[in-house]
Amino acid sequence: MTLARVDAEVAPIGTLEALSRAEAAMLLDRGHGGLHGLFRDCALAVLNCGNETDDGKELLDRYADFDIRLIPRERGIKLDIRNAPASAFVDGRMIVGIQEHLFAVLRDVVYLGEEIRNAVRFDEATSEGTTDIVFHLLRNAGILKPTLHPKLVVCWGGHSIGRDEYEYTKHVGYQLGLRGLDICTGCGPGAMKGPMKGAAIAHAKQRFDGRYLGLTEPGIIAAEAPNPIVNELVIFPDIEKRLEAFVRVGHGFIVFPGGVGTAEEILYLLGILLHPDNADLPFPLIFTGPASAEAYFRQIDAFIGAILGVEAQRRYKIIVDDPERVARELKTGIQAVREFRKDKHDAYNFNWSLKIDHDFQQPFQPTHANMRALDLHRDQPPHRLAAQLRRAFSGLVAGNVKADGIREIERHGVFEIRGDADIMATMDTLLKSFAAQRRMKLSGKAYTPCYRII
Amino acid sequence: MTLARVDAEVAPIGTLEALSRAEAAMLLDRGHGGLHGLFRDCALAVLNCGNETDDGKELLDRYADFDIRLIPRERGIKLDIRNAPASAFVDGRMIVGIQEHLFAVLRDVVYLGEEIRNAVRFDEATSEGTTDIVFHLLRNAGILKPTLHPKLVVCWGGHSIGRDEYEYTKHVGYQLGLRGLDICTGCGPGAMKGPMKGAAIAHAKQRFDGRYLGLTEPGIIAAEAPNPIVNELVIFPDIEKRLEAFVRVGHGFIVFPGGVGTAEEILYLLGILLHPDNADLPFPLIFTGPASAEAYFRQIDAFIGAILGVEAQRRYKIIVDDPERVARELKTGIQAVREFRKDKHDAYNFNWSLKIDHDFQQPFQPTHANMRALDLHRDQPPHRLAAQLRRAFSGLVAGNVKADGIREIERHGVFEIRGDADIMATMDTLLKSFAAQRRMKLSGKAYTPCYRII
Amino acid sequence: MTLARVDAEVAPIGTLEALSRAEAAMLLDRGHGGLHGLFRDCALAVLNCGNETDDGKELLDRYADFDIRLIPRERGIKLDIRNAPASAFVDGRMIVGIQEHLFAVLRDVVYLGEEIRNAVRFDEATSEGTTDIVFHLLRNAGILKPTLHPKLVVCWGGHSIGRDEYEYTKHVGYQLGLRGLDICTGCGPGAMKGPMKGAAIAHAKQRFDGRYLGLTEPGIIAAEAPNPIVNELVIFPDIEKRLEAFVRVGHGFIVFPGGVGTAEEILYLLGILLHPDNADLPFPLIFTGPASAEAYFRQIDAFIGAILGVEAQRRYKIIVDDPERVARELKTGIQAVREFRKDKHDAYNFNWSLKIDHDFQQPFQPTHANMRALDLHRDQPPHRLAAQLRRAFSGLVAGNVKADGIREIERHGVFEIRGDADIMATMDTLLKSFAAQRRMKLSGKAYTPCYRII
Amino acid sequence: MTLARVDAEVAPIGTLEALSRAEAAMLLDRGHGGLHGLFRDCALAVLNCGNETDDGKELLDRYADFDIRLIPRERGIKLDIRNAPASAFVDGRMIVGIQEHLFAVLRDVVYLGEEIRNAVRFDEATSEGTTDIVFHLLRNAGILKPTLHPKLVVCWGGHSIGRDEYEYTKHVGYQLGLRGLDICTGCGPGAMKGPMKGAAIAHAKQRFDGRYLGLTEPGIIAAEAPNPIVNELVIFPDIEKRLEAFVRVGHGFIVFPGGVGTAEEILYLLGILLHPDNADLPFPLIFTGPASAEAYFRQIDAFIGAILGVEAQRRYKIIVDDPERVARELKTGIQAVREFRKDKHDAYNFNWSLKIDHDFQQPFQPTHANMRALDLHRDQPPHRLAAQLRRAFSGLVAGNVKADGIREIERHGVFEIRGDADIMATMDTLLKSFAAQRRMKLSGKAYTPCYRII
Repeated sequence: MTLARVDAEVAPIGTLEALSRAEAAMLLDRGHGGLHGLFRDCALAVLNCGNETDDGKELLDRYADFDIRLIPRERGIKLDIRNAPASAFVDGRMIVGIQEHLFAVLRDVVYLGEEIRNAVRFDEATSEGTTDIVFHLLRNAGILKPTLHPKLVVCWGGHSIGRDEYEYTKHVGYQLGLRGLDICTGCGPGAMKGPMKGAAIAHAKQRFDGRYLGLTEPGIIAAEAPNPIVNELVIFPDIEKRLEAFVRVGHGFIVFPGGVGTAEEILYLLGILLHPDNADLPFPLIFTGPASAEAYFRQIDAFIGAILGVEAQRRYKIIVDDPERVARELKTGIQAVREFRKDKHDAYNFNWSLKIDHDFQQPFQPTHANMRALDLHRDQPPHRLAAQLRRAFSGLVAGNVKADGIREIERHGVFEIRGDADIMATMDTLLKSFAAQRRMKLSGKAYTPCYRII
Repeated sequence: MTLARVDAEVAPIGTLEALSRAEAAMLLDRGHGGLHGLFRDCALAVLNCGNETDDGKELLDRYADFDIRLIPRERGIKLDIRNAPASAFVDGRMIVGIQEHLFAVLRDVVYLGEEIRNAVRFDEATSEGTTDIVFHLLRNAGILKPTLHPKLVVCWGGHSIGRDEYEYTKHVGYQLGLRGLDICTGCGPGAMKGPMKGAAIAHAKQRFDGRYLGLTEPGIIAAEAPNPIVNELVIFPDIEKRLEAFVRVGHGFIVFPGGVGTAEEILYLLGILLHPDNADLPFPLIFTGPASAEAYFRQIDAFIGAILGVEAQRRYKIIVDDPERVARELKTGIQAVREFRKDKHDAYNFNWSLKIDHDFQQPFQPTHANMRALDLHRDQPPHRLAAQLRRAFSGLVAGNVKADGIREIERHGVFEIRGDADIMATMDTLLKSFAAQRRMKLSGKAYTPCYRII
Repeated sequence: MTLARVDAEVAPIGTLEALSRAEAAMLLDRGHGGLHGLFRDCALAVLNCGNETDDGKELLDRYADFDIRLIPRERGIKLDIRNAPASAFVDGRMIVGIQEHLFAVLRDVVYLGEEIRNAVRFDEATSEGTTDIVFHLLRNAGILKPTLHPKLVVCWGGHSIGRDEYEYTKHVGYQLGLRGLDICTGCGPGAMKGPMKGAAIAHAKQRFDGRYLGLTEPGIIAAEAPNPIVNELVIFPDIEKRLEAFVRVGHGFIVFPGGVGTAEEILYLLGILLHPDNADLPFPLIFTGPASAEAYFRQIDAFIGAILGVEAQRRYKIIVDDPERVARELKTGIQAVREFRKDKHDAYNFNWSLKIDHDFQQPFQPTHANMRALDLHRDQPPHRLAAQLRRAFSGLVAGNVKADGIREIERHGVFEIRGDADIMATMDTLLKSFAAQRRMKLSGKAYTPCYRII
Repeated sequence: MTLARVDAEVAPIGTLEALSRAEAAMLLDRGHGGLHGLFRDCALAVLNCGNETDDGKELLDRYADFDIRLIPRERGIKLDIRNAPASAFVDGRMIVGIQEHLFAVLRDVVYLGEEIRNAVRFDEATSEGTTDIVFHLLRNAGILKPTLHPKLVVCWGGHSIGRDEYEYTKHVGYQLGLRGLDICTGCGPGAMKGPMKGAAIAHAKQRFDGRYLGLTEPGIIAAEAPNPIVNELVIFPDIEKRLEAFVRVGHGFIVFPGGVGTAEEILYLLGILLHPDNADLPFPLIFTGPASAEAYFRQIDAFIGAILGVEAQRRYKIIVDDPERVARELKTGIQAVREFRKDKHDAYNFNWSLKIDHDFQQPFQPTHANMRALDLHRDQPPHRLAAQLRRAFSGLVAGNVKADGIREIERHGVFEIRGDADIMATMDTLLKSFAAQRRMKLSGKAYTPCYRII
């Protein structure tokens, strides 16, 4: 198939800050120390928005001739773009939201390359240093507006969900939007797009200048391109910092039905919330979906109950088929967050008090060796076991949709994972039910598992 | 004399970005690696605005009990201020412009401490590295708006000038403002304040959202507190980076009558403009004052002609007592700058093409040894000789008004400077004429020279 | 059924201008010369938004206990509201868009009562005087922004349409919105709401501050309450001035499938466009719907061809099931409008050049006598025949959904209409096909015709 | 003397609403019913700003060839201007503030011509009807922003004052501005310009978006052209409505030294405040000037004491040479106004409660007959005597500076006034002292009295 392609010269919109000559040089540098490759791939991903594919590798292959180059101009820079996906344009002009995303990518790639990489002060070997990177990336992106009241709801859930589940996420977004709440997701289609669309209509009715915050990272962005409604976009260097960003900036959390990625996110949240230091922290968390998703959440709930126990189950509520109640509960929960932070003089815009174990911050490379080395045994505190489980699911997501992961599987066969027999059995049951419900891949293709329990 | 003092708790206005916990800690740290001392002294300086003193040391002594402390709040931070000069307040409320300056100080002290000091990439040992620091400080302060057209006029001149000279600077500012030009000065009273006041009235008449940019540094800020009209303030780490900032951001340049500091600035400009690489660069530069200042500029002109030659004289125009002509000439000159940059796709907001020798970028410590070591001989290219002369004058400014310099003189006696006899003679003539014209100090006290020619 | 009711005190948002004491008194005056009744009924209508009924009389009956009162406040006025429909509120707070509509109603009722009624200069007996009223109502509502470029698309069509037709109007709105076009409709559900919802999402993607203009009148507002997305609302004194407003402010026109009201609107447009003075005026007009609506438009087209001739058919295009083409054609058509106006120095914001015969401006009271007196004969120029036909359809709309009309029918039986036999036959065929397609009423009730051809 | 003249085509700035065709026609109509003459004369007056003349007739004569014409444009209208005073332009471009004034004139002339003249509801024969006209003119000009807190200080005083008095008005304006107060004056130079300039600098320091409201009328505008700092300008049909506007919109009042016009204003204020209905109304009123003006205010105070009594003296304070105290007293006084209005739910933006006798609202034609008919006798309540005195002074202002008045005097000789002997004597003393202090005319010419006491 030949895909329509467009060449264009694009000026920044809004307030892209000037680039220094050194920064511009790094973006053009195709060599080892340069940033051109990273910039190009992320740029392609945001331009591909609307072309529904969740296969990052496929995208890169398909637009192998895509290129992007900085050109200096007296009033800043322009981008010279070749062979871009035509879907980013309307009658030859780039959609403004996508244009914004392009310059968000530029901003974050420069910041990652220049400020983070070269700074002595950011020490990833410590938990504090890692959190500091997350903070600085968010601040540099202008996300940490100190004057705003708590109202940001993080919505997680699958990108590959059925029509009624998708409609349901819109209804929930609409009810959130009517109540003046903003939306933060991981970008991409499905449960990441629905709440934003619903909220956008409600925000229009409330004359509310809504925020639609998208948090992503280079490995996932190609598979889950930000929807143009996203009006604040940040690219993190890896999935762990992206996850940390969600829990530091969000004030309330919703998990919609999804697949294995959603399970990963749930385990991440519970692993953190089970840490003894976070026992008293208010953290509104709701699992919700239409009536048809009730079974799905019951399976997850059973899995959590069986492996992490009742204490874990106490940290969330399951609400089936009631968007208004979801919105009201979150509004109330966020009010409690606000009072807690006010009492403690904690920042509204960044949850410094939340304790995140270094385990949850360290990037996990889903290699065959690392997957095999996971410690899925009961002889550890629940929050550590949750961390191990989270990694297992993270590997499976990579094997399913990420370019690197897919290549690994093609080269070395499926991942092998092991642990306590009952844990392995419960996990396998869950994963099989996901496959049966077609929650593993977006494309029509039959699902081939990328793991083997040993 | 007992001075009125005020205690206050002050919230940021506008868009101060959130601080990380590490940054807040550094600002509170009174130890060696901490930033508290620097922050406190600069904060005191901006709060002292309106109390006319040009003696930085005196200020610090007078308000020895002044203190400032960060306190965390759920919507950012507040500043807890004790024993601040009452002149910063009206009926107990801090003047908003001064409040902005306070947070500009905070922003720049944090940036200097965190980003500049710790970053591998900023290499002061090279000219490029130094320029990069200047660029990043300006960008971090939000000064480098890429979309603006060239219209920034840098006004230099004395802080201690007579009434008619001061009124003249207002008239020039008014004519600049009528023509939609913005003003950039070094802060402080006299020729730094007049043009802004004049421009403010003209901008009001033109409904023009004027920029009043003040560039300063910790050594001079106490002596030349920013006037509250200044609505963009940047604190540079040293006088050389501040001077570089002026010539990189300005599009046109005016020198009003002043004293030895003004002569330093003129030598700095000419030293740079005489560099062969800058021969073709448009750089509108006008020396101007009321009729009474004609003699002053003739002396300077003679000094330049005698020591740096006719080539140097060609880079400026002297206009006496004609504010409208000054404004029209600058408008035309800036139009040429605009066309030049457009042709070359050079940035409007930062003059990357201007070659500044590393000599002009290296901080010059006005110690007795350094002053004695200056090379004021003719056997060097004019732009190098200008650099040496500039340092000589820089030392004299320090000896006159800066806390450090005054202490040095108190401890070790006056500076000794030497060089070719005719240069020394010409220089001494010039300096004596400044003293005769009372252009050396603001206070009523008789002027005691802080140098001796040997 | 007991309906939820809410009491509230509501402050104006945005920039409601102050009211004079005389104006406030008129709004409170329940007597003959007072405006209270008109204000109350229109206020109830906008508050009823979201409760899907198209029966204005039913609404008034249902909320007989609703009341609204001005209360003076030091910063303007507030509205004291009793027994309002609960659907206008979320968790007890009025939806902001509805609040805006309430104050738009207040503004227009005051203007109608004070400025229009009492002014000598507005002479409804002339065509110019009537147009002047339309102009002043629009200007007073802030609609006539002179600086905007032509980009307003008027969308007409039924409020009672099927799901696929409704979805289609959203798709068209989305494509219009992507191209930076604004939407103007008659308020209400169906084809009046769909294009706005679609455009709102596209405008969000294009970061475009979209206008959603709703034009209504007291007789229809109860049946077609403005959707809260409408961010500019104007209430005209009667249906003829409302129709004139559409054609004076719109730059492009779309007719979606509808029922008899839609046919009325088509006849209105064609009657005007067939006037010889308008022969050269560019006026983009497209009839469009999904594949399922093709038959509907073919019937209309046939009706027009048969009665008004090929000249009438030349003034519109029919596009089936192609939202993108609709949007592109309109964009092109509006470009031609822009060039025409620019050439002639005609205002962009008000189509002064369009000739509207006084026939089309005079309010038509759909009494039994007036309906019977219609002149539906061929022995007149097409634009006059179109005017007569338009009135016939107008009467049928009143009989279907307007409180007054329904009362008339209840009291005196169905309307009688007569004319040339072939015209009557063609018309009856069309009306019967509408009823067969259930295009006559929103409620589930079976449709009883409100007319008889004699 | 030949005066520089400029031709220009000027577009509206900001948000001039569209004009109807009928309105445009009236502005072009040079006939009896047309508005062209009024529009032209007021336009010339605002363009003449900066040319210091207070002789309206001289201005009209000098620019007899000036003309202004509307030209229709697709995005509104433009003004085609011929032979305009060059002082309104900088390098050929009109000063933006003056451009705004030009369109304020246009707006008000249209409103006067169309809405006021033709409306049945505005009944000047009643006090309420007259107040309603004042209200509607202010509202139409966008002055009555309901959301603002009380902070508008009306400054009255002479246009022809000495340098130290002028500087003093600037200092007072500066202190008002520092305290967040806005300025309202009658336009023109002297005490009308000084406070605005002072406040503009203070507002800049406080980052305060200041309002500089100018109220004028066709008879005075030529003599007292609005300074371009004025950013809200309203033209009233006559001097009485202009005076009423001052007292209805102001929250605090200052009277600076002036001449006979200032005395007129003082009598106007006291006449109103002495009305029994206004006895309890808070109304902060301060007479102030530099030390040199102390005698002036003592004379006025003595005049008031002698003729209107101690009750009148109780309504104002005299503060000599203390700008800070003036500002603080007004701030406190306005706080009381605010509480009073809040208590009574009275509007902040329009003082409805203030009783103004119809006597004070009726235009006074300063003909020889009317002047002779004034009733300056003691056998009436003080507020009525004040009204008569006010008219006497009003006539003298006309004879001094207004085009009509000067023509009357040229034609028929000086005015004759009569009344109780002691009143006449006190009055003559006061007027002679004004002449002695050169407070009667701006030009250098010797002052010839325009009245004779008989």
